Amino acid sequence: MTAANREPVTILGLGPMGQALAGAFLNNGHPTTMWNRTESKADALVTEGAHRSETVVDAVAASDLVIACVIDYDAVQAIVEPAATALKGKTLVNLTADSPARAREMADWAAEHGIEYLDGAIMTPAPTIGGSAAVVLYAGSQALYEIHEPTLSNLGGTAAHLGTDPGRAAAHDVSLLDMFWTGMAGMVHGFALAKAEGIEAVDLAPYAKGIVNLLPDIMSDFAERIDEDRFTGDISNIRSAAAGMDHIIHAAHNRDIETGVLNAATALAKRATESGYGAESFARLSQVLRDA
Amino acid sequence: MTAANREPVTILGLGPMGQALAGAFLNNGHPTTMWNRTESKADALVTEGAHRSETVVDAVAASDLVIACVIDYDAVQAIVEPAATALKGKTLVNLTADSPARAREMADWAAEHGIEYLDGAIMTPAPTIGGSAAVVLYAGSQALYEIHEPTLSNLGGTAAHLGTDPGRAAAHDVSLLDMFWTGMAGMVHGFALAKAEGIEAVDLAPYAKGIVNLLPDIMSDFAERIDEDRFTGDISNIRSAAAGMDHIIHAAHNRDIETGVLNAATALAKRATESGYGAESFARLSQVLRDA
Ligand SMILES: NC(=O)c1ccc[n+]([C@@H]2O[C@H](COP(=O)([O-])OP(=O)(O)OC[C@H]3O[C@@H](n4cnc5c(N)ncnc54)[C@H](OP(=O)(O)O)[C@@H]3O)[C@@H](O)[C@H]2O)c1
Ligand SMILES: NC(=O)c1ccc[n+]([C@@H]2O[C@H](COP(=O)([O-])OP(=O)(O)OC[C@H]3O[C@@H](n4cnc5c(N)ncnc54)[C@H](OP(=O)(O)O)[C@@H]3O)[C@@H](O)[C@H]2O)c1
Repeated sequence: MTAANREPVTILGLGPMGQALAGAFLNNGHPTTMWNRTESKADALVTEGAHRSETVVDAVAASDLVIACVIDYDAVQAIVEPAATALKGKTLVNLTADSPARAREMADWAAEHGIEYLDGAIMTPAPTIGGSAAVVLYAGSQALYEIHEPTLSNLGGTAAHLGTDPGRAAAHDVSLLDMFWTGMAGMVHGFALAKAEGIEAVDLAPYAKGIVNLLPDIMSDFAERIDEDRFTGDISNIRSAAAGMDHIIHAAHNRDIETGVLNAATALAKRATESGYGAESFARLSQVLRDA
Repeated sequence: MTAANREPVTILGLGPMGQALAGAFLNNGHPTTMWNRTESKADALVTEGAHRSETVVDAVAASDLVIACVIDYDAVQAIVEPAATALKGKTLVNLTADSPARAREMADWAAEHGIEYLDGAIMTPAPTIGGSAAVVLYAGSQALYEIHEPTLSNLGGTAAHLGTDPGRAAAHDVSLLDMFWTGMAGMVHGFALAKAEGIEAVDLAPYAKGIVNLLPDIMSDFAERIDEDRFTGDISNIRSAAAGMDHIIHAAHNRDIETGVLNAATALAKRATESGYGAESFARLSQVLRDA
């Protein structure tokens, strides 16, 4: 593979994800320059042919396409603000995860400094990068996205430009991670309760997967209900969900397991019931949360 | 199909699930007798050939296998206690959902009254009953289960006897429903946040399914970690999970969405971090919950 006709890329940040990004560009023949606060994290990639810069300004000078991927936007700002002049006229693609508001602020900052800006969110773990399972979402100028799309496509899998609001990728990110982390909290709690009842986690896991596999169909139904504000006529309802959650809380307390997450979910369901929605679909809670 | 060689079955309770159970036995040629507090719920099944009894005692007299499926164990007790004499020597299979402790109490009550008892939990929605997707779990005497297994298998799909502890099916049930309802709470919250950011639920849904599809592999990994008390060396850790959840909470507050569920999950992650587990796998939280 020749690098001759490949767009040079600079990566700022070499955590697990930054390293995966750099690796994917390098594997696809892009001249790849890297900077990281802790220099040693570049060592392996240097061996494979990437260039290490000692300063952010040097790293930025090497490529017209600069990708930032660090722990959060405070860190991004700490890195790029001193290099604003060097970034002028270049494209900064920020693949760091943070809130939509921070993404919009960063886009404003970039515009003020004459820096082209795309915001992005990576929805799959670092080892997926470069392969078919990767999902990377982008937001900001459509034209700018199209210019760099051939390069960015080296990250693999599904890439989507979601719209011109620079907060839109981050908005997807927080909404999806909301579902993810809440699901993860439920998973560890369910395993805890099972263990306390003498059930091995590996014995519960096949049934637990069956439960998780019910969610995608419910999601499709709920998504339509939520968009159409249509919450009646579900086979299951909020009142019976609250009763079910009470049984779980009771069972957990019997085993001295705290139930903060379920308490909060149950309180929401009870609040909805008090507002007269007890006989409606659990999907109604999505609207109750917004109009609180 | 002839009913000649089929075991007669009595169903106590005709909510959506009781009706589905009665329908499955009826479809498979079992003489089916029903009782429900509200008589009219038997009407459709009577048309199809099931027998309606006016009293619980009459219903119980019709079959040696009696299945109870009502809203909770308080309701089961209210129904079966006055019929204890009629139930003596017969088999009561309680497919009502409640806590493991209640299941064990019910088994003790049945033993005191000379009633053979199996406890069960139905893990899939009423429309699945009789089809391949149904999952029904049983606990209690293995020999008793084997006697009635040919009849119970008419409920379809996966049937499993989990052990002789009569609380074991209910323990699976609460642990799995814990994961389910917490996941559902995350789903409606994620949709609420997306809507507040101007993203239609149907546009988020395909990505949301992608997120849910990450969970089964994580479950397998976490189950092994939890059984082996092995929480180091995960690519993701509790501290970064807490940071991620803080971004979501921040984004939700920006849109006036309450975050009780995530607050509780984050508090747990922070408590684990304070206990020195910040660099360990999120699976560690399962142990932290038990040893609180
Ligand atoms: N890892 C994944 O699987 C994954 C998946 C999806 C999304 N993401 C997102 O991708 C981003 C990067 O994640 P990651 O896993 O690679 O690593 P991370 O642990 O989130 O962040 C580590 C990176 O941030 C840098 N950093 C932290 N504070 C800094 C500061 N004040 N100034 C300069 N640099 C600073 C670190 O530099 P040092 O090396 O000098 O400490 C390192 O490069 C995050 O926003 C994460 O949410 C990651
Ligand atoms: N539906 C499902 O998809 C599903 C899935 C899995 C598990 N389950 C479990 O299956 C059980 C039954 O669920 P369901 O959906 O059929 O209905 P449900 O709404 O949970 O319960 C309704 C049934 O309980 C009876 N009942 C309530 N209080 C009673 C009392 N004090 N005395 C006598 N009967 C009383 C009702 O009688 P009336 O008709 O007279 O009100 C009706 O037969 C529950 O434990 C549920 O968790 C259901």
